Amino acid sequence: MFAVEVRDHIMIAHSLPRPVFGPAQAMHGATFVTDAAFFTRDLDEDGLAVDIGAATTVLGEVLKPLNYQNLDEVEALNGKVTTTEVIAKFIFDRLAEAVADGRLGPGSHRICKIRVTLHESHAARGWYEAEL
Amino acid sequence: MFAVEVRDHIMIAHSLPRPVFGPAQAMHGATFVTDAAFFTRDLDEDGLAVDIGAATTVLGEVLKPLNYQNLDEVEALNGKVTTTEVIAKFIFDRLAEAVADGRLGPGSHRICKIRVTLHESHAARGWYEAEL
Amino acid sequence: MFAVEVRDHIMIAHSLPRPVFGPAQAMHGATFVTDAAFFTRDLDEDGLAVDIGAATTVLGEVLKPLNYQNLDEVEALNGKVTTTEVIAKFIFDRLAEAVADGRLGPGSHRICKIRVTLHESHAARGWYEAEL
Amino acid sequence: MFAVEVRDHIMIAHSLPRPVFGPAQAMHGATFVTDAAFFTRDLDEDGLAVDIGAATTVLGEVLKPLNYQNLDEVEALNGKVTTTEVIAKFIFDRLAEAVADGRLGPGSHRICKIRVTLHESHAARGWYEAEL
Amino acid sequence: MFAVEVRDHIMIAHSLPRPVFGPAQAMHGATFVTDAAFFTRDLDEDGLAVDIGAATTVLGEVLKPLNYQNLDEVEALNGKVTTTEVIAKFIFDRLAEAVADGRLGPGSHRICKIRVTLHESHAARGWYEAEL
Amino acid sequence: MFAVEVRDHIMIAHSLPRPVFGPAQAMHGATFVTDAAFFTRDLDEDGLAVDIGAATTVLGEVLKPLNYQNLDEVEALNGKVTTTEVIAKFIFDRLAEAVADGRLGPGSHRICKIRVTLHESHAARGWYEAEL
Repeated sequence: MFAVEVRDHIMIAHSLPRPVFGPAQAMHGATFVTDAAFFTRDLDEDGLAVDIGAATTVLGEVLKPLNYQNLDEVEALNGKVTTTEVIAKFIFDRLAEAVADGRLGPGSHRICKIRVTLHESHAARGWYEAEL
Repeated sequence: MFAVEVRDHIMIAHSLPRPVFGPAQAMHGATFVTDAAFFTRDLDEDGLAVDIGAATTVLGEVLKPLNYQNLDEVEALNGKVTTTEVIAKFIFDRLAEAVADGRLGPGSHRICKIRVTLHESHAARGWYEAEL
Repeated sequence: MFAVEVRDHIMIAHSLPRPVFGPAQAMHGATFVTDAAFFTRDLDEDGLAVDIGAATTVLGEVLKPLNYQNLDEVEALNGKVTTTEVIAKFIFDRLAEAVADGRLGPGSHRICKIRVTLHESHAARGWYEAEL
Repeated sequence: MFAVEVRDHIMIAHSLPRPVFGPAQAMHGATFVTDAAFFTRDLDEDGLAVDIGAATTVLGEVLKPLNYQNLDEVEALNGKVTTTEVIAKFIFDRLAEAVADGRLGPGSHRICKIRVTLHESHAARGWYEAEL
Repeated sequence: MFAVEVRDHIMIAHSLPRPVFGPAQAMHGATFVTDAAFFTRDLDEDGLAVDIGAATTVLGEVLKPLNYQNLDEVEALNGKVTTTEVIAKFIFDRLAEAVADGRLGPGSHRICKIRVTLHESHAARGWYEAEL
Repeated sequence: MFAVEVRDHIMIAHSLPRPVFGPAQAMHGATFVTDAAFFTRDLDEDGLAVDIGAATTVLGEVLKPLNYQNLDEVEALNGKVTTTEVIAKFIFDRLAEAVADGRLGPGSHRICKIRVTLHESHAARGWYEAEL
């Protein structure tokens, strides 16, 4: 299995209004340094799993509607508790759509798995991965 | 698959008294920066795989009996060659017990895999992972 | 010159309501991975510049009132534009008070400089440093 | 599953003469910080998946013919487009040969999977992994 | 003293045709992960040492003519041995020009020092810093 | 000011037998990831502050007598409390001797400052720096 992983980040505010979150129930925020990994079983004739440039562009496009936002007011996340895991899954779904739409280049259909990792600090991270 | 990973560390002394270890046969030591990853197939109704706070607390509890110790004298490791791999497995087993005991919160039973990674320097690390 | 540096982090929301901040004018947030470095010209009789344990404790105490907060509503920051630089200076001032109060141990008076570094992402950081 | 991963690096020049590579079609270069992970299902009687020293030595031997080279002129890569993915696979193949030759110690035959990760910058990496 | 530091990278080929460089005399290459730090003695009325966005933009502009290049053929470096230190100084000079031209915003004139750090691997880096 | 910094590591055991060290009074250990930075005011005719290869070799030579040791039994450290700061100073002194002996190449005499940084975990480090 081959993989290419690219990194970007978002800076968001949100609240997590459930008792389990303790002090994080109130409005606070996070930088999520975001890694998106795209997996393929083989390489195309240019020797690529996925073009790193295309992967970087698509990740930036997917993150843009979240960056510098208060997630409590982002319509697409309406009604969701925006934990690290939920945001990872949300970004995964947008990346999967980009793959389905061929936005990662002519070899998009060869991508068989995506993993989205969100580093919320130097000491904690969460991720979601699934086959397409 | 979702995962949450938290980081802590231990500073230990030990000797590795087998010929294969060359200069590491004598008493020396290591900082093991320790990542514990907990995997679940879905999220609970609070949007959590595992609560990062609970995961951090449990990892700290598991590491405490090892921290600042000479592992040659830790009873629970008696008779073991305390390689990075062996310590990773030992921490894994303690974390698996904590999961079985429900110490990672009401959703503990949903944890289906754990991975324990020990970074012993900027250039070497080892890990153990298994399904529960 | 000797130095000891310890790391912790805060997760905050804030808005930066000045035109220069563009999209960051609205409510958003950040994880600030925070390094506090304490400098001394010599070591005490225990071979310490500053006790790493004490430094970690004090940094945690200083960060606690900021962690999981919306900085727009933190009284001590009232009227300030809470840029990375301003928060670094704010933390520096609290650490300097802790040094003046002897909270970093009997050798506190030997600390002659502090540097506070805030990493806001994998690609940007800011810091403030000054002699005491 | 156990794993041991060691890190080294190479500094190479190459060109990627296909239209998809845009500005990277011309002669340029990269540092590939290279992680090689060796997986085993169990530990040997010394408590080892793989000896970290042996793994480090073998990775260094495998990287040596590539280090400080212009990959366009390396015979073993003749006719290949030397993307990150292709180089990762090339290093994987050399490491798999070393495992088959018993160069990772008496327990070499227990290695069941290898993963080779190439970090090409702070923001992009690629890897190849496969069972042996 | 305040500082803001931003990160970007370049991927270059070059040769170092002097005996002291041993195997690096031939054509090879490097990724230089590049940190540019801008220092000021005080903050402007927006609470800024330097705007991180402007710093990121200017660093990108300065690096662009070097990225994906064979430095042996870059006219501006003609006759220079392009060591890590020399490239750090070259980037410093371009950044100092940008500061003098006011390209870092209305507060450009307050920047009193720049430091340029080039990370050439996980184990080596070089930098140049000077007051303006 | 130019600088070149190289990284290596040591894995040591020691005890810190003074009350201030609490649980670290007993035999324990650490990995010290060690950065050695060499500063010069100008570059030699080869464009070098210090040759990175020579710096790496010398750092390795200086660290070798400490690596895999119980520092309580290292004669050169006899009677010292081997805190991170004390070890940083010890390594500094050995590097300063190497500079005085010309072991960093023909330009050794141009080195005007050294800084030795010891990372003892992902969350704490100490360093010593001084002009020569």
